[in-house]
Amino acid sequence: MMTETTLEDFLSALASRAPTPGGGSAAALIGAMGAGLISMVCNVTLGKKGMEEVAAEMRTVCAESESLRVRLTSMIDADIAAFDGLMSAYRLPKGTDAEKAQRSAAIQQSLVAATQTPLGCARACAEVIKLSQRAAQHGYSGVISDAGVGVLAAQTALRSAALNVQINAPLLADRAFAAQASAELEELLAQGARTSEAVFALVRSRLVQAPV
Amino acid sequence: MMTETTLEDFLSALASRAPTPGGGSAAALIGAMGAGLISMVCNVTLGKKGMEEVAAEMRTVCAESESLRVRLTSMIDADIAAFDGLMSAYRLPKGTDAEKAQRSAAIQQSLVAATQTPLGCARACAEVIKLSQRAAQHGYSGVISDAGVGVLAAQTALRSAALNVQINAPLLADRAFAAQASAELEELLAQGARTSEAVFALVRSRLVQAPV
Repeated sequence: MMTETTLEDFLSALASRAPTPGGGSAAALIGAMGAGLISMVCNVTLGKKGMEEVAAEMRTVCAESESLRVRLTSMIDADIAAFDGLMSAYRLPKGTDAEKAQRSAAIQQSLVAATQTPLGCARACAEVIKLSQRAAQHGYSGVISDAGVGVLAAQTALRSAALNVQINAPLLADRAFAAQASAELEELLAQGARTSEAVFALVRSRLVQAPV
Repeated sequence: MMTETTLEDFLSALASRAPTPGGGSAAALIGAMGAGLISMVCNVTLGKKGMEEVAAEMRTVCAESESLRVRLTSMIDADIAAFDGLMSAYRLPKGTDAEKAQRSAAIQQSLVAATQTPLGCARACAEVIKLSQRAAQHGYSGVISDAGVGVLAAQTALRSAALNVQINAPLLADRAFAAQASAELEELLAQGARTSEAVFALVRSRLVQAPV
Protein backbone atom coordinates (compact mmCIF):
# COMPACT_ATOMS: atom_id res chain seq x y z
CA MET A 1 0.00 0.00 0.00
CA MET A 2 1.42 3.33 -1.10
CA THR A 3 -0.28 5.03 1.87
CA GLU A 4 1.99 3.06 4.20
CA THR A 5 5.23 4.38 2.66
CA THR A 6 7.01 7.39 4.14
CA LEU A 7 6.73 10.85 2.58
CA GLU A 8 10.40 10.60 1.61
CA ASP A 9 9.95 7.26 -0.17
CA PHE A 10 6.70 8.35 -1.83
CA LEU A 11 8.44 11.43 -3.26
CA SER A 12 11.35 9.32 -4.56
CA ALA A 13 8.93 6.90 -6.20
CA LEU A 14 7.02 9.80 -7.75
CA ALA A 15 10.25 11.22 -9.23
CA SER A 16 11.46 7.87 -10.62
CA ARG A 17 10.87 6.61 -14.15
CA ALA A 18 8.33 4.08 -12.84
CA PRO A 19 4.90 5.03 -14.21
CA THR A 20 3.24 4.74 -10.78
CA PRO A 21 2.79 6.57 -8.52
CA GLY A 22 2.14 9.38 -11.01
CA GLY A 23 -0.10 12.38 -11.43
CA GLY A 24 -3.26 10.47 -10.52
CA SER A 25 -1.96 9.38 -7.12
CA ALA A 26 -0.49 12.85 -6.58
CA ALA A 27 -3.95 14.35 -7.25
CA ALA A 28 -5.56 12.01 -4.70
CA LEU A 29 -2.92 12.82 -2.07
CA ILE A 30 -3.18 16.58 -2.64
CA GLY A 31 -6.98 16.29 -2.41
CA ALA A 32 -6.65 14.32 0.84
CA MET A 33 -4.35 17.05 2.18
CA GLY A 34 -6.99 19.62 1.28
CA ALA A 35 -9.64 17.66 3.18
CA GLY A 36 -7.26 17.19 6.11
CA LEU A 37 -6.58 20.92 6.36
CA ILE A 38 -10.33 21.66 6.44
CA SER A 39 -10.66 19.11 9.27
CA MET A 40 -7.78 20.83 11.09
CA VAL A 41 -9.48 24.23 10.85
CA CYS A 42 -12.65 22.68 12.34
CA ASN A 43 -10.77 20.78 15.06
CA VAL A 44 -8.82 23.87 16.16
CA THR A 45 -11.98 26.02 16.11
CA LEU A 46 -13.80 23.42 18.26
CA GLY A 47 -11.09 23.79 20.92
CA LYS A 48 -11.36 27.60 21.13
CA LYS A 49 -13.25 29.45 23.86
CA GLY A 50 -15.67 31.99 22.48
CA MET A 51 -16.31 29.94 19.32
CA GLU A 52 -19.15 27.86 20.82
CA GLU A 53 -21.67 29.44 18.45
CA VAL A 54 -20.11 27.74 15.42
CA ALA A 55 -19.34 24.41 17.15
CA ALA A 56 -22.26 22.50 15.64
CA GLU A 57 -21.38 23.75 12.14
CA MET A 58 -17.69 22.89 12.63
CA ARG A 59 -18.63 19.37 13.81
CA THR A 60 -20.77 18.82 10.70
CA VAL A 61 -18.09 20.15 8.33
CA CYS A 62 -15.39 18.07 10.05
CA ALA A 63 -17.38 14.83 9.82
CA GLU A 64 -17.77 15.40 6.07
CA SER A 65 -14.16 16.44 5.46
CA GLU A 66 -12.89 13.42 7.40
CA SER A 67 -15.05 11.13 5.30
CA LEU A 68 -13.71 12.79 2.15
CA ARG A 69 -10.15 12.49 3.45
CA VAL A 70 -10.58 8.73 3.87
CA ARG A 71 -12.08 8.43 0.36
CA LEU A 72 -9.34 10.51 -1.26
CA THR A 73 -6.60 8.65 0.63
CA SER A 74 -7.91 5.34 -0.73
CA MET A 75 -7.70 6.80 -4.25
CA ILE A 76 -3.89 7.05 -4.00
CA ASP A 77 -3.75 3.26 -4.38
CA ALA A 78 -6.92 3.02 -6.51
CA ASP A 79 -5.24 5.15 -9.19
CA ILE A 80 -2.24 2.82 -9.26
CA ALA A 81 -4.55 -0.20 -9.57
CA ALA A 82 -6.49 1.43 -12.44
CA PHE A 83 -3.26 2.28 -14.28
CA ASP A 84 -1.81 -1.20 -13.76
CA GLY A 85 -5.06 -2.75 -15.01
CA LEU A 86 -4.89 -0.70 -18.18
CA MET A 87 -1.22 -1.55 -18.78
CA SER A 88 -1.93 -5.28 -18.27
CA ALA A 89 -4.76 -5.11 -20.80
CA TYR A 90 -2.49 -3.41 -23.38
CA ARG A 91 0.08 -6.19 -22.87
CA LEU A 92 -2.40 -9.00 -23.66
CA PRO A 93 -1.54 -11.10 -26.76
CA LYS A 94 -2.99 -9.93 -30.08
CA GLY A 95 -1.90 -12.73 -32.43
CA THR A 96 -5.29 -14.15 -33.41
CA ASP A 97 -8.65 -12.46 -34.04
CA ALA A 98 -10.01 -14.04 -30.85
CA GLU A 99 -7.04 -12.65 -28.88
CA LYS A 100 -7.50 -9.25 -30.49
CA ALA A 101 -11.19 -9.19 -29.51
CA GLN A 102 -10.38 -10.31 -25.96
CA ARG A 103 -7.62 -7.71 -25.62
CA SER A 104 -9.84 -4.98 -26.97
CA ALA A 105 -12.61 -5.85 -24.50
CA ALA A 106 -10.11 -5.91 -21.61
CA ILE A 107 -8.74 -2.51 -22.64
CA GLN A 108 -12.23 -1.02 -22.76
CA GLN A 109 -13.09 -2.46 -19.36
CA SER A 110 -9.87 -1.00 -17.90
CA LEU A 111 -10.50 2.36 -19.56
CA VAL A 112 -13.86 2.59 -17.81
CA ALA A 113 -12.11 2.09 -14.46
CA ALA A 114 -9.30 4.49 -15.48
CA THR A 115 -11.98 7.13 -16.22
CA GLN A 116 -14.20 6.48 -13.20
CA THR A 117 -11.32 6.57 -10.70
CA PRO A 118 -10.12 10.13 -11.50
CA LEU A 119 -13.75 11.25 -11.99
CA GLY A 120 -14.46 10.05 -8.44
CA CYS A 121 -11.39 11.98 -7.27
CA ALA A 122 -12.64 15.14 -9.03
CA ARG A 123 -16.08 14.72 -7.42
CA ALA A 124 -14.58 14.34 -3.93
CA CYS A 125 -12.34 17.39 -4.46
CA ALA A 126 -15.36 19.45 -5.52
CA GLU A 127 -16.99 18.47 -2.20
CA VAL A 128 -13.87 19.55 -0.31
CA ILE A 129 -14.01 22.94 -2.05
CA LYS A 130 -17.65 23.39 -0.98
CA LEU A 131 -16.77 22.48 2.62
CA SER A 132 -13.80 24.85 2.61
CA GLN A 133 -16.26 27.73 2.15
CA ARG A 134 -17.95 26.90 5.45
CA ALA A 135 -14.59 26.42 7.20
CA ALA A 136 -13.29 29.74 5.84
CA GLN A 137 -16.48 31.56 6.92
CA HIS A 138 -16.75 30.22 10.46
CA GLY A 139 -13.28 28.89 11.34
CA TYR A 140 -11.00 30.46 13.96
CA SER A 141 -9.05 33.30 12.37
CA GLY A 142 -5.70 32.03 13.74
CA VAL A 143 -5.85 29.02 11.40
CA ILE A 144 -7.67 30.67 8.51
CA SER A 145 -4.57 30.44 6.29
CA ASP A 146 -4.86 26.64 6.61
CA ALA A 147 -8.34 26.86 5.09
CA GLY A 148 -6.70 28.83 2.26
CA VAL A 149 -4.09 26.13 1.65
CA GLY A 150 -6.87 23.53 1.90
CA VAL A 151 -9.00 25.09 -0.82
CA LEU A 152 -6.02 25.65 -3.15
CA ALA A 153 -4.99 22.01 -2.66
CA ALA A 154 -8.51 20.74 -3.40
CA GLN A 155 -8.79 22.88 -6.54
CA THR A 156 -5.39 21.75 -7.86
CA ALA A 157 -6.31 18.13 -7.12
CA LEU A 158 -9.59 18.58 -9.02
CA ARG A 159 -7.81 20.01 -12.08
CA SER A 160 -5.17 17.28 -11.86
CA ALA A 161 -7.70 14.47 -11.67
CA ALA A 162 -9.50 16.07 -14.62
CA LEU A 163 -6.39 15.60 -16.78
CA ASN A 164 -6.61 11.84 -16.28
CA VAL A 165 -10.30 11.78 -17.21
CA GLN A 166 -9.46 13.82 -20.32
CA ILE A 167 -6.75 11.35 -21.34
CA ASN A 168 -8.91 8.26 -21.03
CA ALA A 169 -12.44 9.38 -21.94
CA PRO A 170 -11.63 9.94 -25.67
CA LEU A 171 -10.50 6.30 -25.95
CA LEU A 172 -13.76 4.85 -24.60
CA ALA A 173 -15.88 2.85 -27.05
CA ASP A 174 -18.95 3.63 -24.91
CA ARG A 175 -19.46 7.15 -26.26
CA ALA A 176 -22.53 7.79 -24.11
CA PHE A 177 -20.54 7.14 -20.94
CA ALA A 178 -17.61 9.20 -22.27
CA ALA A 179 -19.90 12.15 -23.06
CA GLN A 180 -21.58 11.93 -19.66
CA ALA A 181 -18.22 11.78 -17.83
CA SER A 182 -16.87 14.76 -19.83
CA ALA A 183 -19.98 16.84 -19.22
CA GLU A 184 -19.93 16.15 -15.49
CA LEU A 185 -16.22 16.95 -15.37
CA GLU A 186 -16.65 20.30 -17.12
CA GLU A 187 -19.35 21.24 -14.61
CA LEU A 188 -17.12 20.20 -11.67
CA LEU A 189 -14.22 22.24 -13.11
CA ALA A 190 -16.32 25.35 -13.72
CA GLN A 191 -17.97 25.24 -10.29
CA GLY A 192 -14.63 24.41 -8.62
CA ALA A 193 -12.84 27.35 -10.21
CA ARG A 194 -15.58 29.80 -9.18
CA THR A 195 -15.97 28.57 -5.61
CA SER A 196 -12.29 28.07 -4.87
CA GLU A 197 -11.32 31.60 -5.93
CA ALA A 198 -14.21 33.02 -3.87
CA VAL A 199 -13.08 31.04 -0.81
CA PHE A 200 -9.46 32.08 -1.33
CA ALA A 201 -10.52 35.75 -1.51
CA LEU A 202 -12.51 35.28 1.72
CA VAL A 203 -9.43 33.75 3.39
CA ARG A 204 -7.28 36.69 2.22
CA SER A 205 -9.79 39.18 3.65
CA ARG A 206 -9.91 37.39 7.02
CA LEU A 207 -6.08 37.08 7.07
CA VAL A 208 -5.77 40.84 7.33
CA GLN A 209 -7.99 40.90 10.40
CA ALA A 210 -6.23 38.00 12.13
CA PRO A 211 -5.33 38.72 15.78
CA VAL A 212 -1.64 39.33 16.42
CA MET B 1 11.25 13.86 11.19
CA MET B 2 7.86 14.34 9.54
CA THR B 3 9.33 13.11 6.23
CA GLU B 4 9.81 9.67 7.83
CA THR B 5 6.14 9.23 8.72
CA THR B 6 3.76 7.38 6.41
CA LEU B 7 1.34 9.22 4.12
CA GLU B 8 -1.53 7.89 6.23
CA ASP B 9 -0.05 9.20 9.50
CA PHE B 10 0.96 12.53 7.95
CA LEU B 11 -2.62 13.06 6.75
CA SER B 12 -4.02 12.22 10.20
CA ALA B 13 -1.59 14.64 11.85
CA LEU B 14 -2.54 17.33 9.33
CA ALA B 15 -6.25 16.85 10.13
CA SER B 16 -5.78 16.89 13.91
CA ARG B 17 -6.12 19.93 16.17
CA ALA B 18 -2.31 20.02 16.63
CA PRO B 19 -0.97 23.22 15.00
CA THR B 20 1.78 21.32 13.14
CA PRO B 21 1.98 19.96 10.53
CA GLY B 22 -0.18 22.69 9.00
CA GLY B 23 -0.48 24.69 5.81
CA GLY B 24 3.24 25.52 5.68
CA SER B 25 4.33 21.88 5.71
CA ALA B 26 1.55 21.03 3.27
CA ALA B 27 2.85 23.73 0.91
CA ALA B 28 6.38 22.29 1.08
CA LEU B 29 5.14 18.75 0.44
CA ILE B 30 2.94 19.82 -2.49
CA GLY B 31 5.91 21.76 -3.92
CA ALA B 32 8.14 18.70 -3.51
CA MET B 33 5.51 16.62 -5.34
CA GLY B 34 5.54 19.18 -8.15
CA ALA B 35 9.32 18.90 -8.43
CA GLY B 36 9.11 15.10 -8.27
CA LEU B 37 6.60 14.96 -11.13
CA ILE B 38 8.88 17.13 -13.31
CA SER B 39 11.73 14.71 -12.54
CA MET B 40 9.46 11.80 -13.49
CA VAL B 41 8.64 13.37 -16.87
CA CYS B 42 12.38 13.78 -17.53
CA ASN B 43 13.25 10.27 -16.32
CA VAL B 44 10.57 8.62 -18.48
CA THR B 45 11.57 10.73 -21.51
CA LEU B 46 15.23 9.71 -21.04
CA GLY B 47 14.20 6.04 -21.31
CA LYS B 48 12.30 6.50 -24.60
CA LYS B 49 13.73 5.57 -27.99
CA GLY B 50 13.44 8.39 -30.50
CA MET B 51 13.73 11.06 -27.80
CA GLU B 52 17.56 11.23 -27.88
CA GLU B 53 17.47 14.77 -29.25
CA VAL B 54 16.08 16.14 -25.97
CA ALA B 55 18.13 13.89 -23.67
CA ALA B 56 20.69 16.56 -22.68
CA GLU B 57 17.90 19.05 -21.90
CA MET B 58 15.97 16.44 -19.88
CA ARG B 59 19.11 15.59 -17.90
CA THR B 60 19.67 19.28 -17.05
CA VAL B 61 16.04 19.84 -16.06
CA CYS B 62 16.01 16.64 -13.96
CA ALA B 63 19.19 17.58 -12.05
CA GLU B 64 17.58 20.91 -11.14
CA SER B 65 14.17 19.48 -10.25
CA GLU B 66 15.80 16.81 -8.07
CA SER B 67 17.77 19.46 -6.23
CA LEU B 68 14.56 21.48 -5.73
CA ARG B 69 12.75 18.35 -4.55
CA VAL B 70 15.37 17.80 -1.84
CA ARG B 71 15.14 21.47 -0.77
CA LEU B 72 11.34 21.47 -0.68
CA THR B 73 11.25 18.15 1.20
CA SER B 74 13.51 19.60 3.91
CA MET B 75 11.07 22.51 4.25
CA ILE B 76 8.32 20.17 5.51
CA ASP B 77 10.23 19.95 8.81
CA ALA B 78 11.73 23.45 8.57
CA ASP B 79 8.22 24.94 8.64
CA ILE B 80 7.39 23.00 11.80
CA ALA B 81 10.63 24.22 13.43
CA ALA B 82 9.89 27.83 12.48
CA PHE B 83 6.34 27.60 13.87
CA ASP B 84 7.51 25.92 17.09
CA GLY B 85 10.19 28.60 17.53
CA LEU B 86 7.59 31.34 17.23
CA MET B 87 5.22 29.63 19.68
CA SER B 88 8.06 29.17 22.21
CA ALA B 89 8.92 32.86 21.93
CA TYR B 90 5.27 33.87 22.54
CA ARG B 91 5.23 31.67 25.65
CA LEU B 92 8.28 33.39 27.26
CA PRO B 93 7.58 35.16 30.58
CA LYS B 94 6.57 38.83 30.41
CA GLY B 95 6.42 39.79 34.12
CA THR B 96 9.22 42.36 34.25
CA ASP B 97 10.40 44.97 31.74
CA ALA B 98 13.58 42.94 31.15
CA GLU B 99 11.49 39.84 30.45
CA LYS B 100 9.23 41.81 28.14
CA ALA B 101 12.21 43.12 26.16
CA GLN B 102 13.74 39.63 25.96
CA ARG B 103 10.43 38.09 24.84
CA SER B 104 9.90 40.80 22.26
CA ALA B 105 13.39 40.26 20.81
CA ALA B 106 12.84 36.47 20.70
CA ILE B 107 9.49 36.94 18.93
CA GLN B 108 11.10 39.21 16.34
CA GLN B 109 13.93 36.75 15.76
CA SER B 110 11.41 33.91 15.29
CA LEU B 111 9.26 36.03 13.00
CA VAL B 112 12.23 36.56 10.69
CA ALA B 113 12.65 32.77 10.45
CA ALA B 114 8.88 32.28 10.07
CA THR B 115 8.97 34.73 7.13
CA GLN B 116 12.16 33.46 5.51
CA THR B 117 11.10 29.79 5.60
CA PRO B 118 7.89 30.19 3.52
CA LEU B 119 9.62 32.80 1.31
CA GLY B 120 12.28 30.17 0.55
CA CYS B 121 9.49 27.71 -0.24
CA ALA B 122 7.84 30.23 -2.59
CA ARG B 123 11.20 30.84 -4.34
CA ALA B 124 11.78 27.10 -4.85
CA CYS B 125 8.23 26.62 -6.19
CA ALA B 126 8.78 29.47 -8.67
CA GLU B 127 11.85 27.57 -9.91
CA VAL B 128 9.81 24.38 -10.27
CA ILE B 129 7.25 26.29 -12.36
CA LYS B 130 10.02 27.55 -14.68
CA LEU B 131 11.41 24.00 -15.06
CA SER B 132 7.94 22.62 -15.76
CA GLN B 133 7.85 24.73 -18.93
CA ARG B 134 10.90 22.91 -20.29
CA ALA B 135 9.50 19.51 -19.24
CA ALA B 136 6.13 20.29 -20.85
CA GLN B 137 7.81 21.45 -24.08
CA HIS B 138 10.21 18.57 -24.55
CA GLY B 139 8.87 15.70 -22.41
CA TYR B 140 7.43 12.46 -23.81
CA SER B 141 3.76 12.99 -24.67
CA GLY B 142 2.70 9.80 -22.83
CA VAL B 143 3.55 11.44 -19.47
CA ILE B 144 2.70 15.01 -20.37
CA SER B 145 -0.28 15.03 -17.99
CA ASP B 146 2.22 14.47 -15.16
CA ALA B 147 3.94 17.72 -16.15
CA GLY B 148 0.48 19.32 -15.91
CA VAL B 149 -0.09 18.00 -12.39
CA GLY B 150 3.48 19.07 -11.52
CA VAL B 151 2.97 22.69 -12.55
CA LEU B 152 -0.43 22.94 -10.82
CA ALA B 153 1.12 21.53 -7.64
CA ALA B 154 4.04 23.97 -7.77
CA GLN B 155 1.72 26.94 -8.33
CA THR B 156 -0.59 25.94 -5.45
CA ALA B 157 2.43 25.42 -3.20
CA LEU B 158 3.71 28.90 -4.14
CA ARG B 159 0.37 30.55 -3.32
CA SER B 160 0.14 28.52 -0.09
CA ALA B 161 3.63 29.47 1.07
CA ALA B 162 2.77 33.09 0.24
CA LEU B 163 -0.07 33.03 2.79
CA ASN B 164 2.44 32.29 5.56
CA VAL B 165 4.71 35.14 4.46
CA GLN B 166 1.68 37.44 4.41
CA ILE B 167 0.73 36.43 7.96
CA ASN B 168 4.15 37.02 9.45
CA ALA B 169 5.66 39.92 7.47
CA PRO B 170 3.21 42.57 8.87
CA LEU B 171 4.36 41.69 12.41
CA LEU B 172 8.07 42.28 11.69
CA ALA B 173 9.70 45.26 13.45
CA ASP B 174 12.32 45.37 10.68
CA ARG B 175 10.11 47.18 8.16
CA ALA B 176 12.82 47.26 5.49
CA PHE B 177 13.08 43.45 5.53
CA ALA B 178 9.29 43.12 5.60
CA ALA B 179 8.91 45.42 2.59
CA GLN B 180 11.63 43.59 0.68
CA ALA B 181 10.09 40.18 1.43
CA SER B 182 6.61 41.39 0.40
CA ALA B 183 7.89 42.93 -2.83
CA GLU B 184 9.78 39.77 -3.77
CA LEU B 185 6.74 37.65 -2.94
CA GLU B 186 4.42 39.73 -5.12
CA GLU B 187 6.83 39.35 -8.03
CA LEU B 188 7.05 35.55 -7.48
CA LEU B 189 3.24 35.32 -7.34
CA ALA B 190 2.70 37.38 -10.49
CA GLN B 191 5.35 35.52 -12.47
CA GLY B 192 4.16 32.15 -11.12
CA ALA B 193 0.53 32.80 -12.11
CA ARG B 194 1.52 33.82 -15.65
CA THR B 195 3.96 30.99 -16.29
CA SER B 196 1.95 28.21 -14.67
CA GLU B 197 -1.19 28.96 -16.70
CA ALA B 198 0.90 29.10 -19.89
CA VAL B 199 2.49 25.74 -19.07
CA PHE B 200 -0.89 24.22 -18.21
CA ALA B 201 -2.30 25.40 -21.56
CA LEU B 202 0.72 23.86 -23.32
CA VAL B 203 0.09 20.56 -21.51
CA ARG B 204 -3.59 20.65 -22.51
CA SER B 205 -2.66 21.21 -26.17
CA ARG B 206 -0.16 18.33 -26.14
CA LEU B 207 -2.67 16.08 -24.33
CA VAL B 208 -4.92 16.11 -27.36
CA GLN B 209 -2.12 14.85 -29.56
CA ALA B 210 -0.97 12.09 -27.17
CA PRO B 211 -0.51 8.71 -28.87
CA VAL B 212 -3.21 6.16 -28.08
